[in-house]
Amino acid sequence: MNSYVEKCTSVGLNACNNGHTIVSEKATCNTHGEDSAYFAGWDEYRRNPYDPLHNPSGVIQMGLAENRLSFDLLERWLEEHPEVKITFRQDLFRKLALYQDYHGLEDFRKAMVNFMEAVRGNKGKLDPDRIVNTAGATSANEVLMFCLADPGDVFLLPSPYYPGFDRDLKWRTGIEIVPIHCYSCNNFQITKSAVISAYKEAQKRKKKVKGILITNPCNPLGTTSSAKTLKMLLAFAHRKKIHLVCDEIYSGSVFCFPEFHSIANMMAKENYSKRDNVHIVYSLSKDLGLPGFRVGIIYSYNNTVATAARRMSSFCMVSSQTQHLLSTMLSDSEFVNNYIAENKKRLEERYRLVVSGLARAGIRCLEGNAGLFCWVNMSHLLVSNDLEGELKLWKNILYEARVNISPGSSFHCMEPGWFRVCFADMNISTMEVALRRLENFVKQCKATR
Amino acid sequence: MNSYVEKCTSVGLNACNNGHTIVSEKATCNTHGEDSAYFAGWDEYRRNPYDPLHNPSGVIQMGLAENRLSFDLLERWLEEHPEVKITFRQDLFRKLALYQDYHGLEDFRKAMVNFMEAVRGNKGKLDPDRIVNTAGATSANEVLMFCLADPGDVFLLPSPYYPGFDRDLKWRTGIEIVPIHCYSCNNFQITKSAVISAYKEAQKRKKKVKGILITNPCNPLGTTSSAKTLKMLLAFAHRKKIHLVCDEIYSGSVFCFPEFHSIANMMAKENYSKRDNVHIVYSLSKDLGLPGFRVGIIYSYNNTVATAARRMSSFCMVSSQTQHLLSTMLSDSEFVNNYIAENKKRLEERYRLVVSGLARAGIRCLEGNAGLFCWVNMSHLLVSNDLEGELKLWKNILYEARVNISPGSSFHCMEPGWFRVCFADMNISTMEVALRRLENFVKQCKATR
Repeated sequence: MNSYVEKCTSVGLNACNNGHTIVSEKATCNTHGEDSAYFAGWDEYRRNPYDPLHNPSGVIQMGLAENRLSFDLLERWLEEHPEVKITFRQDLFRKLALYQDYHGLEDFRKAMVNFMEAVRGNKGKLDPDRIVNTAGATSANEVLMFCLADPGDVFLLPSPYYPGFDRDLKWRTGIEIVPIHCYSCNNFQITKSAVISAYKEAQKRKKKVKGILITNPCNPLGTTSSAKTLKMLLAFAHRKKIHLVCDEIYSGSVFCFPEFHSIANMMAKENYSKRDNVHIVYSLSKDLGLPGFRVGIIYSYNNTVATAARRMSSFCMVSSQTQHLLSTMLSDSEFVNNYIAENKKRLEERYRLVVSGLARAGIRCLEGNAGLFCWVNMSHLLVSNDLEGELKLWKNILYEARVNISPGSSFHCMEPGWFRVCFADMNISTMEVALRRLENFVKQCKATR
Repeated sequence: MNSYVEKCTSVGLNACNNGHTIVSEKATCNTHGEDSAYFAGWDEYRRNPYDPLHNPSGVIQMGLAENRLSFDLLERWLEEHPEVKITFRQDLFRKLALYQDYHGLEDFRKAMVNFMEAVRGNKGKLDPDRIVNTAGATSANEVLMFCLADPGDVFLLPSPYYPGFDRDLKWRTGIEIVPIHCYSCNNFQITKSAVISAYKEAQKRKKKVKGILITNPCNPLGTTSSAKTLKMLLAFAHRKKIHLVCDEIYSGSVFCFPEFHSIANMMAKENYSKRDNVHIVYSLSKDLGLPGFRVGIIYSYNNTVATAARRMSSFCMVSSQTQHLLSTMLSDSEFVNNYIAENKKRLEERYRLVVSGLARAGIRCLEGNAGLFCWVNMSHLLVSNDLEGELKLWKNILYEARVNISPGSSFHCMEPGWFRVCFADMNISTMEVALRRLENFVKQCKATR
């Protein structure tokens, strides 16, 4: 296991090897993490994309957490609301064209709060003045790191974690990630002892721990944090005087039991008053399926952080044209409630389909209730129980079965053989082709043994 | 003079005084520069904005470099092109909604190149593959600093320079600015000896100089760099193996002789081959008057820098909805050429009006040919020839004449008494009120002496 861990840690994370003297270390080092299998799989898909008519033997992309299941609902709303098309009534155009302050349009912040409250079951109020706009969750997370930690400081992240965090949290800020290792034996749940040992590990490296960052719902697990886990993390963060960042970008994509607990609702319910080390990240890329629009937010309970983040948002503002369109759409409560309900129903259907399709191939998934992906155990298909074995299996699935899924090592998973399989970015017939390919691949694996 | 310099340098640039232990130094220090008179004037305008009917004694804003002189041209184009309003034809909506790669939409990069070539008099071709999209020039400049310099490294900037650069270039990157001091005796032109002494000053501080950054046309001077100056800077940068960043965000706003020389045209004309230390920043905020849309670009001749910048642009992407609208608009060559010509004509008219209005008040301007502002000499109105005198005059103009203009000290100008006066962000009648107020203010100054 130890050599697997060491190799995982070094994947895409080598020290900077700067052959160029003239540019910065950041420009030439590879801490952006884009050299991992996670991104290599995307490239292979781009080179040879599946098309049922024109390229039926191409690669099917199951490595991208995008949601195109409910676009028809957005399109219908747009058709029924021609007023947003007339974005260029004189006054409105001039208002949108000119500089806004860093807060963004007031209507937009209110609409975001409406949507976030609806996603959280309308169980608590949020304050539009705590919203800081950013160009997607990518910049929201980076801005928070700039605000909360100095170069060399550490954030603790439960692993497996989203591969993009190496870029988003570390690359330009200079902060470091120490993983809170989670294992399959308890379904990868975060335990107090795992948090404590990550904290101690950072101390052993003589690093200052500035916070914990979790994704809830979790990417890549597709599960939500229990109330008990959230309380444990809040208590730990409070005791150690560190921050708790909850990236809740999949909060509107919780499609079945157990219920989602937002840290916001949790603190409200518990009358928890020491909130100023708690920060939420949200975005419209996943729940509304609009990553191209680049809309993210920070919701910070800390005034100093909110002020600094608002200043930093001048580096990553959302287009006023897009703010206007979305503030109109998300102020429509009837639409919002219907969209959320219908989108969840479709995600659940799709999830069930994938789980049963993989089961036919003898592949088991972690039981999930959220997100656009399953966390899948293929360790029984490994030729060797290590990083090489996992990457070999990944390559075989990519080049033989021609399906791109993402290996656990790119998520810094501690156990070889787990993969993230995305299911919301394709139509049903492509999904069926992908599942058949995986089924055949497994049969072949068994035959050649 | 020396004490003026020291005081100027410390305005808004004190060392971090971090009263909070829990957040980062960046979050609580004031290197964002927003505590200067430049931003304080904006706040005062916001608190008490002039309105001819409802608040005729309010503050008139002449501190904001925005251009609303040619909005009617944009509006007419939008009216004549209903097809861009139907942004939500099914295929198009889905294409825009989903993730783009970091390059942005191909059509958009081509359209940006068309527009930049037109602005540069169609004298040379640019390559769409060298375009990196960013959310405004603010993030373009920051991304370049992250790519070109490491924390503690120095960029040389001709002073007076845009106050936002303290935030954009330094705050999150940790780089430092050493000014190339320019003086009124030669109309604030950059001399070789000034460049050499700035370079030596950085060396004296044991800092590594990584480049020179100029604005051409210059903000706040409203002038363009001569071909000779550009050649001198190119040669110096080449000899010292450092970068040359040319921020050309006002290149479409050159309204009279002398002609504008883009570094791009200059290098093409001279067959200059050693281009990989040269980088251009551009944006649509000034020339097209669309700061709310957050559209900036980096055009780098260095492949390593272009690649790294493209990766970093995931922190500051432009909304695909906005990319689509602008790529349609800027691909219309007839519109683009007419817009550029008409906008220049209007800028020149406005410039002449301000210069003659100020002349009536006995105030002289640096002769300008570009931008949305004049650089104005009010040193004869100072009660004392120092920073205090300048800030006192600024406050009197703000609170007595109720006009917000920006004091030279916020631009790190070495000589007290210079102010930047913006003229493209108001209608003509408001402009006339502002000029009358300034005229009366000067009369009163003289009367009370």
